[in-house]
Amino acid sequence: MALITAEEIFEICRAEMPLVLDLGLEIEEIGEGRCRVRQPYRAAFVRPGGTISGPTMMGLADCAMWIAVMSVVGKAEMAVTASLNINFLKRPKPVALIAECRVLKSGRRLAYGEISLFSEGEEEEGPVAHVTCTYSLPPRGAP
Amino acid sequence: MALITAEEIFEICRAEMPLVLDLGLEIEEIGEGRCRVRQPYRAAFVRPGGTISGPTMMGLADCAMWIAVMSVVGKAEMAVTASLNINFLKRPKPVALIAECRVLKSGRRLAYGEISLFSEGEEEEGPVAHVTCTYSLPPRGAP
Amino acid sequence: MALITAEEIFEICRAEMPLVLDLGLEIEEIGEGRCRVRQPYRAAFVRPGGTISGPTMMGLADCAMWIAVMSVVGKAEMAVTASLNINFLKRPKPVALIAECRVLKSGRRLAYGEISLFSEGEEEEGPVAHVTCTYSLPPRGAP
Amino acid sequence: MALITAEEIFEICRAEMPLVLDLGLEIEEIGEGRCRVRQPYRAAFVRPGGTISGPTMMGLADCAMWIAVMSVVGKAEMAVTASLNINFLKRPKPVALIAECRVLKSGRRLAYGEISLFSEGEEEEGPVAHVTCTYSLPPRGAP
Repeated sequence: MALITAEEIFEICRAEMPLVLDLGLEIEEIGEGRCRVRQPYRAAFVRPGGTISGPTMMGLADCAMWIAVMSVVGKAEMAVTASLNINFLKRPKPVALIAECRVLKSGRRLAYGEISLFSEGEEEEGPVAHVTCTYSLPPRGAP
Repeated sequence: MALITAEEIFEICRAEMPLVLDLGLEIEEIGEGRCRVRQPYRAAFVRPGGTISGPTMMGLADCAMWIAVMSVVGKAEMAVTASLNINFLKRPKPVALIAECRVLKSGRRLAYGEISLFSEGEEEEGPVAHVTCTYSLPPRGAP
Repeated sequence: MALITAEEIFEICRAEMPLVLDLGLEIEEIGEGRCRVRQPYRAAFVRPGGTISGPTMMGLADCAMWIAVMSVVGKAEMAVTASLNINFLKRPKPVALIAECRVLKSGRRLAYGEISLFSEGEEEEGPVAHVTCTYSLPPRGAP
Repeated sequence: MALITAEEIFEICRAEMPLVLDLGLEIEEIGEGRCRVRQPYRAAFVRPGGTISGPTMMGLADCAMWIAVMSVVGKAEMAVTASLNINFLKRPKPVALIAECRVLKSGRRLAYGEISLFSEGEEEEGPVAHVTCTYSLPPRGAP
């Protein structure tokens, strides 16, 4: 069972991470070690060629991993990204993006997971990007 | 010699990438296969703990590489990020970020480079993040 | 259906890649865009602490991806690794290693996939390492 | 000043890592946070197309980072690779490989660095591969 709810995550964001709320992210599912997050489409994300910008996709993947980490270790908004590796596989459509995240390891100090990003409605055609990500966890007991 | 000027890059951004202009990026130096780009500090970039968000740093690195690639191959705004790997090394100060980018290889189809990110005024204390990045180049003759 | 058989792969190795045969790799399964490869345990792979060396795991993952790529594009032993990213998740036991590989994208010029490495008999306890890998494909028609 | 000598490193290898000695690696230089390591050419490293195999290059880079880490933190043969990212930039010649390694951060728990690999005698033509690597450090006081 997830150790945090979508509502608790949004409370953290309201208090401390206005940028996430500004992006309009929606948590469609959350379970232990996994989540599905939706990034609505916005014209501002677009780059030459009509595709969604890389930083938009990286930000979504990073945020999905942050949520999935908290689903395993509980409220730990001080967890920080240690590394992130993204591979862009095909041009996303100008529609919403879906991030499917799965934690592959959660240790005492580090959590590691993978995130597949899809154009909404085209999940069967394969991911538009694939990300692996390591988070550094705060010492237990710390906020 | 760089095959594109800072002014030509801003013209591309004005016409096609308003997001870059919105971030307020400044090109401090540009040479063949290298550039130095400055991201002014903004409160909106901050995440819990008072540090600059990961996506902000990824976006800056990605943009610096895009500029450095064009310094080698000329106007090629259709070049797209194929992959990006970022390692966060220490907590950036709440000040401007500096990206130093260097192209390590520019081939027919791919360009690869590295980017070190520094807190402005603290370059001697080492990078706050280190990035490697591959760009996929459009066929020559294409825009 | 896989476009190459395990036997055809071993023929290529016999003719041109003695190093692979020396490692004693076994192809346990091969399907279109996926394979399962077994690396028998050898004392020479061990490093201080009794664990299997990183290069041994990287070599296995790289080889599994090479096989999975050929399952999609056919005989293409000239396909070469463009990049490989490995994360070591826990100490492997001194037993055989299993690589499960899945191609996530196979394009005209590049193929990208992921590989999970397990200690044999402990697949349920999660991977000991996770790898993502890009192969550069030879032009079609080339050997 | 390096906190370990080349001779001390070879003693560790003789006692515990025969694989490294088998490869015939030579430490050409070692300083604080950097080293230059040479991998003599061997026919067994070759793969189809006459080029040196990826795993050979990964193993050399990993070993160079292990040495550079010990140059900063002292004898710490239990330091283990946490992640490694390699980009292959051009086909190496069938000659010796040179690894130039530089530690970019050495913290309490992790060390991060970069390694450029060159074909010996062709350093001016740029690296044949570029690697970034994170090592997990044993608690201080531990062997």
